[in-house]
Amino acid sequence: MSRDRAATRAKLIAAARVEFARRGIDGARVDRIAREAQVSKERIYGHFGSKEGLFEAAVAEALEEHTAALGLPSGDIGEYVGRLFDMHSENPQLLRLLLWEALHYGDTPLPDEEQRAGHYARKTEALASVLGVPAGRQVALVLLAAIGLAAWPLAVPQLTRTVVPDAGQGAADGDEIRDFLVRFARQALPPAGQGGARGSWVSQS
Amino acid sequence: MSRDRAATRAKLIAAARVEFARRGIDGARVDRIAREAQVSKERIYGHFGSKEGLFEAAVAEALEEHTAALGLPSGDIGEYVGRLFDMHSENPQLLRLLLWEALHYGDTPLPDEEQRAGHYARKTEALASVLGVPAGRQVALVLLAAIGLAAWPLAVPQLTRTVVPDAGQGAADGDEIRDFLVRFARQALPPAGQGGARGSWVSQS
Repeated sequence: MSRDRAATRAKLIAAARVEFARRGIDGARVDRIAREAQVSKERIYGHFGSKEGLFEAAVAEALEEHTAALGLPSGDIGEYVGRLFDMHSENPQLLRLLLWEALHYGDTPLPDEEQRAGHYARKTEALASVLGVPAGRQVALVLLAAIGLAAWPLAVPQLTRTVVPDAGQGAADGDEIRDFLVRFARQALPPAGQGGARGSWVSQS
Repeated sequence: MSRDRAATRAKLIAAARVEFARRGIDGARVDRIAREAQVSKERIYGHFGSKEGLFEAAVAEALEEHTAALGLPSGDIGEYVGRLFDMHSENPQLLRLLLWEALHYGDTPLPDEEQRAGHYARKTEALASVLGVPAGRQVALVLLAAIGLAAWPLAVPQLTRTVVPDAGQGAADGDEIRDFLVRFARQALPPAGQGGARGSWVSQS
């Protein structure tokens, strides 16, 4: 890719991430992305083929950036849940993109589903090595549960506010929720050496 | 409310649930809801005030219906997570409405936030009594985690498919995910009498 072409692509994805995170696939306007990136609408289609192609490029980049900042699983599951919670709290863009994507595609395959699966396979492998068990479906399910525990309270903030209100102090704050989730995950899957027999159910894959 | 007025309201909410679940608040067309319910657009505003008012009425009804079918927490936390998973699998409408709502309102309060909090307070009380601890913020956090564990894999199906793929057999099926989540939750919060000392961390509210 020429340097100009790469620079155009980067500007487009940056503008697309903001527009799609705010308005979703159907609500986003390619015109607005073009204007924001100072690139013609025709060139967007030249680069990405379609609005959905641009959306998937935006999600892929947000996901890579998130994973680079987060790092692979290490420590124990509670520590990973805590890190996931911090990352998604600090940057809500990726979660918004994933919700829009879920609502748009539902049970229909994504255009880049295989590549996405590869992305998570690397995380599952790292998690298996942390847990000291072979990588497999059970470990992938642990990964899914860890992401869900950390992401859910941030993905549906209105539910979090109404489930955990406090007459005196307003809604539960992030630290309280984070501490709870770390403890909950650690209890489900104690670190190696602490109740290892309990953790062993994961290796039944 | 007159019988006619109640019938009109019911028809409107039924049509609104379908339209909003499919397209979200911004994507939904009040025209389409009016046509579907065979009620004039003016009467919709007469009943609900605004598109957002109609949306909130649709969510409130979907939530009541879900809770009536689900029942309050009973048994142990794993059993409740399993029931939540079944309900949301069988009827994805409520989860879609909650995601659209999250994306629309974000950190802005809902119009009926207090009523919604009351809805969850009843669940928290029932859960506290199941766990044998006083109702409080810690139990509300358990409720939030239980809902999240069950709902997350169904709320973002594309993530579930890509995190837990299987080269031979396609994505993990619902039963496998359900069993895993029940086990995970039960491990985090064992039923009374089974490792009760571990469960006791919940009562630190």
